[in-house]
Amino acid sequence: MSSAVQPAIVGATGYTGFELTRILLGHPKARKPLLFRRDSEVAGAVDLTETYPFLSGNGHGGLPVEPFSWSALKERGVDVVFLCTPHEVSREWGTEAQSHGVRVVDLSGAWRLKQEANRKVYGFKDADAVTASALDQSAAYGIPELHAEAIADAELVANAGCYATSIILALSPWVRAGLVDIEHGIICDSKSGVSGAGKTPSAKTHFVEVAESLSAYSVFGHRHTGEILEQLGLRDSELQFTPHLLPIPRGILSTIYVRTKGSVSANELEQCLREFYAGKSWVRVFGASRLPEIKFSLHTNYCDIGFSVAPDGKRVVLVSCLDNLLKGASGQAVQNMNVMFGWNEREGLQ
Amino acid sequence: MSSAVQPAIVGATGYTGFELTRILLGHPKARKPLLFRRDSEVAGAVDLTETYPFLSGNGHGGLPVEPFSWSALKERGVDVVFLCTPHEVSREWGTEAQSHGVRVVDLSGAWRLKQEANRKVYGFKDADAVTASALDQSAAYGIPELHAEAIADAELVANAGCYATSIILALSPWVRAGLVDIEHGIICDSKSGVSGAGKTPSAKTHFVEVAESLSAYSVFGHRHTGEILEQLGLRDSELQFTPHLLPIPRGILSTIYVRTKGSVSANELEQCLREFYAGKSWVRVFGASRLPEIKFSLHTNYCDIGFSVAPDGKRVVLVSCLDNLLKGASGQAVQNMNVMFGWNEREGLQ
Amino acid sequence: MSSAVQPAIVGATGYTGFELTRILLGHPKARKPLLFRRDSEVAGAVDLTETYPFLSGNGHGGLPVEPFSWSALKERGVDVVFLCTPHEVSREWGTEAQSHGVRVVDLSGAWRLKQEANRKVYGFKDADAVTASALDQSAAYGIPELHAEAIADAELVANAGCYATSIILALSPWVRAGLVDIEHGIICDSKSGVSGAGKTPSAKTHFVEVAESLSAYSVFGHRHTGEILEQLGLRDSELQFTPHLLPIPRGILSTIYVRTKGSVSANELEQCLREFYAGKSWVRVFGASRLPEIKFSLHTNYCDIGFSVAPDGKRVVLVSCLDNLLKGASGQAVQNMNVMFGWNEREGLQ
Amino acid sequence: MSSAVQPAIVGATGYTGFELTRILLGHPKARKPLLFRRDSEVAGAVDLTETYPFLSGNGHGGLPVEPFSWSALKERGVDVVFLCTPHEVSREWGTEAQSHGVRVVDLSGAWRLKQEANRKVYGFKDADAVTASALDQSAAYGIPELHAEAIADAELVANAGCYATSIILALSPWVRAGLVDIEHGIICDSKSGVSGAGKTPSAKTHFVEVAESLSAYSVFGHRHTGEILEQLGLRDSELQFTPHLLPIPRGILSTIYVRTKGSVSANELEQCLREFYAGKSWVRVFGASRLPEIKFSLHTNYCDIGFSVAPDGKRVVLVSCLDNLLKGASGQAVQNMNVMFGWNEREGLQ
Repeated sequence: MSSAVQPAIVGATGYTGFELTRILLGHPKARKPLLFRRDSEVAGAVDLTETYPFLSGNGHGGLPVEPFSWSALKERGVDVVFLCTPHEVSREWGTEAQSHGVRVVDLSGAWRLKQEANRKVYGFKDADAVTASALDQSAAYGIPELHAEAIADAELVANAGCYATSIILALSPWVRAGLVDIEHGIICDSKSGVSGAGKTPSAKTHFVEVAESLSAYSVFGHRHTGEILEQLGLRDSELQFTPHLLPIPRGILSTIYVRTKGSVSANELEQCLREFYAGKSWVRVFGASRLPEIKFSLHTNYCDIGFSVAPDGKRVVLVSCLDNLLKGASGQAVQNMNVMFGWNEREGLQ
Repeated sequence: MSSAVQPAIVGATGYTGFELTRILLGHPKARKPLLFRRDSEVAGAVDLTETYPFLSGNGHGGLPVEPFSWSALKERGVDVVFLCTPHEVSREWGTEAQSHGVRVVDLSGAWRLKQEANRKVYGFKDADAVTASALDQSAAYGIPELHAEAIADAELVANAGCYATSIILALSPWVRAGLVDIEHGIICDSKSGVSGAGKTPSAKTHFVEVAESLSAYSVFGHRHTGEILEQLGLRDSELQFTPHLLPIPRGILSTIYVRTKGSVSANELEQCLREFYAGKSWVRVFGASRLPEIKFSLHTNYCDIGFSVAPDGKRVVLVSCLDNLLKGASGQAVQNMNVMFGWNEREGLQ
Repeated sequence: MSSAVQPAIVGATGYTGFELTRILLGHPKARKPLLFRRDSEVAGAVDLTETYPFLSGNGHGGLPVEPFSWSALKERGVDVVFLCTPHEVSREWGTEAQSHGVRVVDLSGAWRLKQEANRKVYGFKDADAVTASALDQSAAYGIPELHAEAIADAELVANAGCYATSIILALSPWVRAGLVDIEHGIICDSKSGVSGAGKTPSAKTHFVEVAESLSAYSVFGHRHTGEILEQLGLRDSELQFTPHLLPIPRGILSTIYVRTKGSVSANELEQCLREFYAGKSWVRVFGASRLPEIKFSLHTNYCDIGFSVAPDGKRVVLVSCLDNLLKGASGQAVQNMNVMFGWNEREGLQ
Repeated sequence: MSSAVQPAIVGATGYTGFELTRILLGHPKARKPLLFRRDSEVAGAVDLTETYPFLSGNGHGGLPVEPFSWSALKERGVDVVFLCTPHEVSREWGTEAQSHGVRVVDLSGAWRLKQEANRKVYGFKDADAVTASALDQSAAYGIPELHAEAIADAELVANAGCYATSIILALSPWVRAGLVDIEHGIICDSKSGVSGAGKTPSAKTHFVEVAESLSAYSVFGHRHTGEILEQLGLRDSELQFTPHLLPIPRGILSTIYVRTKGSVSANELEQCLREFYAGKSWVRVFGASRLPEIKFSLHTNYCDIGFSVAPDGKRVVLVSCLDNLLKGASGQAVQNMNVMFGWNEREGLQ
């Protein structure tokens, strides 16, 4: 029976681990999650409620964070493990999990890329290893709206990147339908809240450096670019992605500039989006009269999509929003788990 | 002698009027500004330090805000009047000021546009009037880096729009030098703090609606578009401008996407910017290693410009930042005044 | 059966109405809420998802906002109505609801005060009316941790004020146990996010006026003072309450200064709090090692309480935090509803 | 002649060093400041404009940060050195500077305390050293409004703490005039922006941890308490100081609760403040009708003071505001320098 599913989280003390814990504690079909930490994580975090008093109460009886080991995972009967770990750790453990027969949802970038050339930005040591390559191909790219079948069967789901999710969900319907003038080039100007940079303090996340400002970063070189290209079937020269750091804790808004191919009406464009996402719980298509804003999807698992067409009917501004810690990370991870175990994809996420 | 110059401000209670007052109080070549209000402004504002206690102290002996009248302006010997007034008021008073022999710096959009088609967005009543047309042509567009001579001689200077300044200053050097592939199209994705929306409370400026969010607005229809097109000599289809509302009080960052024409190196692009702005005090060109951020120019009159070139050498991301209340409004207005009276353009702005 | 309970909300377009709607849509024992607007509310708001796109999706099939009338309430079989209305409207309708046999949870200040002297700050027209006085006495003060029995039986529950809840919950245990030196005086220095000021735009809620600042207001004259005095059994001279406006959307932190009576140890103080709130779901008592912060209870219905004792053992700083829109308003309103209908007080609020 | 004064700054890369540099670059009576770094500071910071692009331009020809040495100080003819260094470094160097004949303005807490018992919180190694004690006594406490004469003659000025300045300036007039019921106790509830925590990244300054929250810290144990007690002549039990961390970059507001001794009218209280600060440039006394807010003094060197009296005429809420990096640190440091060299105290600060 479904309630037998036992999830575990490795790397529970970061922001995505915290959100995962919060969601899983209320998930009707999952047991209370087991929390693990890697050796390098603060040893003092004996209970997650100390790091996040937000999580105390609720009668869950404490959230101990134990040292991670494969044997601990086996002994406790873990069915699925969420890896909130650095790329190189996920790279190693993803393969190892298979030998232990534990299904994995990996929140890092370790297994998202099918093409070796794109994977180079992560600098993995095993770049040429045979085993790795096998899993690289069998790993499911974790956007359920696009890959539900593969996810349902997958041993390892590579949860999609936050920026990538906002861009891929917005563009997929029109690109697949051939409505976009790909050759002219697509520009994605994205803006994200600070939690996307993680919990480790740095100059980049210092309140005084971020508040009252805005900055572009990783121009022509952000790691999510490869995911976007692969999922949309584009070449490097056809897509330009510029992320910006917003002075807010969470939320992403992507402003995407495309030109339509041939003559397409605003109605046809809207219709294409609506049909593509018909029956999909976690994408909301906005009508022509309104564009999504970050606050509409904050603290939810929704990705909101809207657009505006120029009077010339050729140029289109496509806007998508999501909460980078939910649909952009932990919410989507649970949505992936729901699909992996054959549950309704809204389970535990409302 | 220069110290004889007497400035006046109409509409002193708004944000641009406040900043103008603040700057002029410390301007070494201008007398203490006279402050006027239109009938519709709050009658209670008898002294500007009540609305802005920030301005009290400093030994200026009070900042009374008087009801506006042309006779008051004449009696008090006003040499130059700054209009911080709505477009339609500026439209009317700009013409009238000429008959009274008072030079004008207008901070509204009333006199910025040379082409009648572009002016239509403002819906002025005098669209076809002869007098208006004469001033439309003689008014100087108020970006001193581009129009110093015309400004020096002008009876009326149309202070440039905040977004427009950030985009025109960034693009002018390359566009004039023919380095940009205009036909491919230019995309300007701009983000502005809330003070750009003015001091009148509305749903758009409510703290709870703005904080923790981001939104695009006036897509394909913002009033500053006409200014940008005219100043850069572009056609409507060649430029796309999308403004966004940032959850910060002030500051603008424009991310501009262009393709170069022919083969141009990053060095040539940087050289072009540096030469264009050589000797210009208020534009800082950033080298290839760094992009400007909003906080670098906040509370200053600088416009900062930097860029990044794609590995293919064709696609360029150009970033410009400024403080929308200073270089984007009141600071530039004083810079224009400095040029009008033959002073150093840094006077009073350091 | 419980699922037969039909709630309605009047004044759904404000922040408390929005939060109530959001909670009730997920409440397992309540039907989808009926939404009503008063004549003065924007007529255009035909569906609440237009005002709050956040609420769209979820398969609720639309959230129409209808014009309010008692007959509409009766026809639709409303069991309990939440009044998110101005004080004077609630004052009138509270009495009227009785004649229609509809139970009421009133979120305004209309029915919170038992003593006529305290009610004067609201300036009600019916100050001396007999009917009103009867309801003034029978109305239950809506903090379930203190008045569960009265609430269970009440026709009208006067949902407590946001500041008042944070202060009354923190002080009640020690004051009732006689541990506080009342005569010396109690000082409550409270800080609240901007949503406490409501959704109507004003100079006080303008982003530029609030961001990057902090201000004290209504010093020695805030309307919540009467509630606090009555609930704690204090005289005016014994309590001093100073609210401040924080540059955040939501959340309240009250820093409360008391002196203990006689010699009381930190352990005894903590024990007193823990015993008082034993079995209460929505108050979390923090141990001596940590004080609550606003972020711990944000987006939850918890009130968090912690304290610190001076080395002299006499002076104590008591800190309480809550989300002003949840435990300070709509969350507590639903908690009150749960108690009114005999349900678990956590129902619908997790 | 005055322009011969050569200032130097040690620790220029932190926030106070940055602000000092900014101010001194525009000071009409000081040469361009020499900037030094301690060995432990980032070696890469060869020019301060790299760390703070804000400071580039202005024709200052670069702001090199050199390794610190006493010989470098002597060779370059430094007249006054500003120490923006940790407490223990300032403790050591303050004494050493005397032997080199260089006047010092120390921005740390090293030399502010006259009483050894209060100094203990800093844990200095030299607690009993004779030399240290001599300088402890001769060092001037750096609030010019209170100690102008001592500062004018001092070899070392101990620039006052940010919180301490806001509280001492607010309370001194009434306490000295005997208008305050000291025995009843004084409560100082202070709130500060994040820059007060310094530039080193930590969990406490992480944007996501600070934004949307508020927290009290160092309750009954903040280091500034000793300064406040000594300067106001109070005993530990007579003053209670609770600092809070505000989600803004800069600014302090202190809400101070006192009871008056005997019967004093609001007019007498205001008169006392006005007389005390008559002729003082950097304190603004607010009339009874308005309390200061953080935004009024932001980016200025002012300390603003206002108050409100309870109807009973006994209880008073006193509010003071200042910019913690200016009047609370670098601005006051320059004000102290102005007094040390016999200049007008407004010099360079307007």
